[in-house]
Amino acid sequence: MIGLDSYRKIVDHALPSCFEGIRPQALHDATMWYPEAGGKRLRPVMALLACEASGGSVEDALPVALAVELVHNFSLVHDDIMDHDATRRGRATVHTRWDEATAILAGDVLFARAFEVLARIPDPAAHQEASRLLSVAIRRLCEGQAMDVAFEKRKDVTTAEYLDMIGGKTAVLFAAACHGGALSAKRTNRAAIEALDRFGDAFGMAFQIADDLLDVTADSQTMGKPWGSDVRAGKQTVLVLEALARADAAQRRALDAALGNPKATDEEVRRAVDAMRASGALAAAEALRDRHAQAAADAIAPLAETPAKRALLSLNEWARTRSY
Amino acid sequence: MIGLDSYRKIVDHALPSCFEGIRPQALHDATMWYPEAGGKRLRPVMALLACEASGGSVEDALPVALAVELVHNFSLVHDDIMDHDATRRGRATVHTRWDEATAILAGDVLFARAFEVLARIPDPAAHQEASRLLSVAIRRLCEGQAMDVAFEKRKDVTTAEYLDMIGGKTAVLFAAACHGGALSAKRTNRAAIEALDRFGDAFGMAFQIADDLLDVTADSQTMGKPWGSDVRAGKQTVLVLEALARADAAQRRALDAALGNPKATDEEVRRAVDAMRASGALAAAEALRDRHAQAAADAIAPLAETPAKRALLSLNEWARTRSY
Repeated sequence: MIGLDSYRKIVDHALPSCFEGIRPQALHDATMWYPEAGGKRLRPVMALLACEASGGSVEDALPVALAVELVHNFSLVHDDIMDHDATRRGRATVHTRWDEATAILAGDVLFARAFEVLARIPDPAAHQEASRLLSVAIRRLCEGQAMDVAFEKRKDVTTAEYLDMIGGKTAVLFAAACHGGALSAKRTNRAAIEALDRFGDAFGMAFQIADDLLDVTADSQTMGKPWGSDVRAGKQTVLVLEALARADAAQRRALDAALGNPKATDEEVRRAVDAMRASGALAAAEALRDRHAQAAADAIAPLAETPAKRALLSLNEWARTRSY
Repeated sequence: MIGLDSYRKIVDHALPSCFEGIRPQALHDATMWYPEAGGKRLRPVMALLACEASGGSVEDALPVALAVELVHNFSLVHDDIMDHDATRRGRATVHTRWDEATAILAGDVLFARAFEVLARIPDPAAHQEASRLLSVAIRRLCEGQAMDVAFEKRKDVTTAEYLDMIGGKTAVLFAAACHGGALSAKRTNRAAIEALDRFGDAFGMAFQIADDLLDVTADSQTMGKPWGSDVRAGKQTVLVLEALARADAAQRRALDAALGNPKATDEEVRRAVDAMRASGALAAAEALRDRHAQAAADAIAPLAETPAKRALLSLNEWARTRSY
């Protein structure tokens, strides 16, 4: 994420305005809780870059950038309730810090504010396209989360179903950020808008697969959540699905001991990860991640060579190889 | 609600299209659960009438009408989780019939679909105004619900605070329905839009006060929820606040025995209601309701005499005197 600090600062500077006037105080504070805790601001930064990459200026894309960041935080607040997560970005989750009613409402207010902010787009036709885009993205995000929750109770999830799920849960909001950023440029360019939409979608797929891989390859300090927490929670990531499909009997035993076992020891999780590696599942998941990252790069190859395009490409490379 | 069946049928006919393509199946069914159970369709019918009353045709207002009905149902699904309600419209609530995760997501999808449907408004400028309007309304709705929840833990709520709360929780969506319906008319008329916004707001205030009164004056069969359930839940309605402010010692004891006591007998609730009546609180709440109903009628008095205006006025009179 080198070189993107100036973009992040633009987002950080504008974000507090999104929480003005929310009341009562507890609800106001709960809506700000995750956004003010930081985060990578990936989606808004990509909206700004997409706008520049299609000939616009960053200011044009600010409504879209802020709206997608608010939507991202809305989904985190609600997902954390459903997933019973206690910490996020090193802080207590909203429903833990306050209560569940406040967390449901804080998510709803973040959602509503996203559309309030989106209405700042000066051109009504651009606003209408962005609004349609974002509402579809949010609905698909919810559908992806519903699939993710449903997968927990199933033993027969396929890699294709998993990819369909993360297409909604993760990729669609990156696509909306890039698409919305591009259409915010004053002189819109249909080819660039469509290329950036495809870039965002493929980037999001690679990003999510990389995220799933990090659960077993990164250490907990840099991740901000415990190592192997997806494994213990029994999340059926592409890594797990591929491992279950490829494992021999011994590998299968190692996987079964840790997957979905909240009390699995670090040693048991380590043996399960060894089985993922030995069975070839890790390499298969990495290959899948890299294919999507390549598709992202290919999508914007036809765009003019600009600093913004180069920044998007290096962000794409970072997402593929990141360690946090 | 006599004479409005044709408007309700238009809404009922168009509503199923709002649920097309939602997946997985459980989430699809959960989003439809309340809308297909019926309800009065008050908000969408008022959007259609407001459009006609400002010179448009009902078809023009369909996107706004459907969107406000979806938003209303979104708020019911989420509120029922927070209020731990088990039944709604004679059915199990969504979080009871499915589970809480599904209910949170179903609400979110109803919210998202509202904005997807709103984007069907053909004129981008009208769409932008409707979108801004609806997003502010939803945020204020959430703020009102947060205040309502916060009031449960307080002993010093004033009637002014209560009115502020229902202004968000109830009135703002009626105002948005009428405002949005009016601006959907092909030849928009600023004076009519503003008059209808004020009508919706005042109507909503009267409607909510009437609803609070019905908790103690209606029987449970026609209400679809147990008699005195707000009393037992300790809801600080205007009726309760006025009663607490006016009660003598004996009346106060009768109130204290039933208010916020889930195990209060029907006889105890009856004695509390008698205290509300004897203290003058019932009459004060009725007067407040009638003042808002009058303000609603006054707001649209300057509009041309049309069947739609007459229908809005009779709806306003029904809301004031209704028994269900």
